[in-house]
Amino acid sequence: MALKFSHFPNSLSSTSSPFLSLTFPTCTRFSRVASSASQMDNQRPRFTEFSYASPPIKDLMVHLISTVESKMESMLLPCTLPQDVQYFENQSGTAHASLYIRSGTSSSPIDFILGSWLHCELPTGGALSITSLSSYMNTSTDAPHLVIEFIQSSPTSLVLIIDLPPRKDLVLYPDYLNKFYQETELDKQRQLLDKITEVQPYVSPSLYIRSVFSPTAIVFRLDSETERLEQILRDDVSCAAKEVLGIWLELCVLGEKGEVRDDEKAHLKKRDSVFKSKSIETDIGSALPRMFGQETADRVLGVLQALL
Amino acid sequence: MALKFSHFPNSLSSTSSPFLSLTFPTCTRFSRVASSASQMDNQRPRFTEFSYASPPIKDLMVHLISTVESKMESMLLPCTLPQDVQYFENQSGTAHASLYIRSGTSSSPIDFILGSWLHCELPTGGALSITSLSSYMNTSTDAPHLVIEFIQSSPTSLVLIIDLPPRKDLVLYPDYLNKFYQETELDKQRQLLDKITEVQPYVSPSLYIRSVFSPTAIVFRLDSETERLEQILRDDVSCAAKEVLGIWLELCVLGEKGEVRDDEKAHLKKRDSVFKSKSIETDIGSALPRMFGQETADRVLGVLQALL
Repeated sequence: MALKFSHFPNSLSSTSSPFLSLTFPTCTRFSRVASSASQMDNQRPRFTEFSYASPPIKDLMVHLISTVESKMESMLLPCTLPQDVQYFENQSGTAHASLYIRSGTSSSPIDFILGSWLHCELPTGGALSITSLSSYMNTSTDAPHLVIEFIQSSPTSLVLIIDLPPRKDLVLYPDYLNKFYQETELDKQRQLLDKITEVQPYVSPSLYIRSVFSPTAIVFRLDSETERLEQILRDDVSCAAKEVLGIWLELCVLGEKGEVRDDEKAHLKKRDSVFKSKSIETDIGSALPRMFGQETADRVLGVLQALL
Repeated sequence: MALKFSHFPNSLSSTSSPFLSLTFPTCTRFSRVASSASQMDNQRPRFTEFSYASPPIKDLMVHLISTVESKMESMLLPCTLPQDVQYFENQSGTAHASLYIRSGTSSSPIDFILGSWLHCELPTGGALSITSLSSYMNTSTDAPHLVIEFIQSSPTSLVLIIDLPPRKDLVLYPDYLNKFYQETELDKQRQLLDKITEVQPYVSPSLYIRSVFSPTAIVFRLDSETERLEQILRDDVSCAAKEVLGIWLELCVLGEKGEVRDDEKAHLKKRDSVFKSKSIETDIGSALPRMFGQETADRVLGVLQALL
């Protein structure tokens, strides 16, 4: 959560992780000679191809991003990431990733939207695929962020996160809780998924990540044979993700912005900043060098840190 | 959570509640003539008798309260509650409750400790028993509160809550999260209980109550045949509750108090106040009159509100 690598790979070594037994020697092998720059450019997959996602996740992500971009078109600047950050891989070709970032215009409530996917071959012979779409708000509003993320460790096992992480302390601001979570009936979507036999609550190994979720967060683990898992993704998870995105778009992005006082803006800015930098420090900071080598990691982290 | 009736009875009508099908006509019948005052005085059960709790819960609560009172003896003033608040029942004798409150001395970090039990006969022929021990800190420290609560709806079904609810916004204060939750390894206790087959995560129907828990909160539902349930309570739950209490006593009560600046004190006071009053408003406010009649409810609520 909170930028795309947040559960990964630190989470994989935790006792709470579904990926307990996995390690990443495969991802850090540098046995193959890297492709030349010109070859790379021709072969680069585009972000929206979701080259390694399972079909239902790919279809859902294409739908979600298309919805976001059509509803928010006037609010978003073009993606200006360098080509070698929009797509990058390790030297052995066992780890691949793509980033897609569009900043909000100055008059919009959006700081930036961030899409990503990552694919990494595993020593067990399988592969790990993470696919995510997040949106971070700016301080013209106190409305919640958006996070949608799928972490698939095998064709039969998946962690899914769909949430509007709150930007205020809900214990101190029950009216905020009421406006964005109670009155929107967001919990209905969580309850519907929770009723599915193959769905179990997922507890992130990171205490910080657990803390950023809202009380209606959909944070589940889904274990089933492939066909049934894909059916649940197509029928139930897709429906929940579209509903949550719809509520977020209507209330947080396109709805009337409540006034945010200057002192509140300073507080929001500080909280958002800790939220983003803590996620990078905890997760991406150590993960990227191990997976993609220091040079690529520095290049990608440099771009991300410029957003904070 | 947060004062003793917090899951009850509003939670009982929610779709997320384990007590989904229960209603409370039995608790509000006024068919019997109330005992006279003199009879009542002689018959009043004392708080520490835990007259209606199951044996392992009674034994555990006696141990916990004895530990708290011996370790914190110099910090606590005597309980000065009126007799008819220390114990009260409804006119038909189908609902009984006991409160026990000791305020902290002016030099202690304790605002007050609050113990309670409640027993209510159910229309189904069974009974609901809630037993709890909480401690609320004052603003000389920002250390977490303590909450331990058992909600038993039948001999084979129980909800248990053991937590140190944080007093600061964990997203904004990762150092606080680290100090009180990460370094104390509190999550180990949650993980141990989570491994037990009969233990399932419990999601409170109240979004506000979900928000007040820490990321290491033990919030579980336990369903099993009576003997096994009591064994889990004696072996596993008791151990976890004692460990968490030990950590809280050592770090939050008896440990060195970190300095709290005046502006932080004001913020803590406001947050604690919202936390306590919101719990009363949401839960006790409507529950007490329905269960015990308006007169008794007013008497008890008056005492509780004076603590806020």
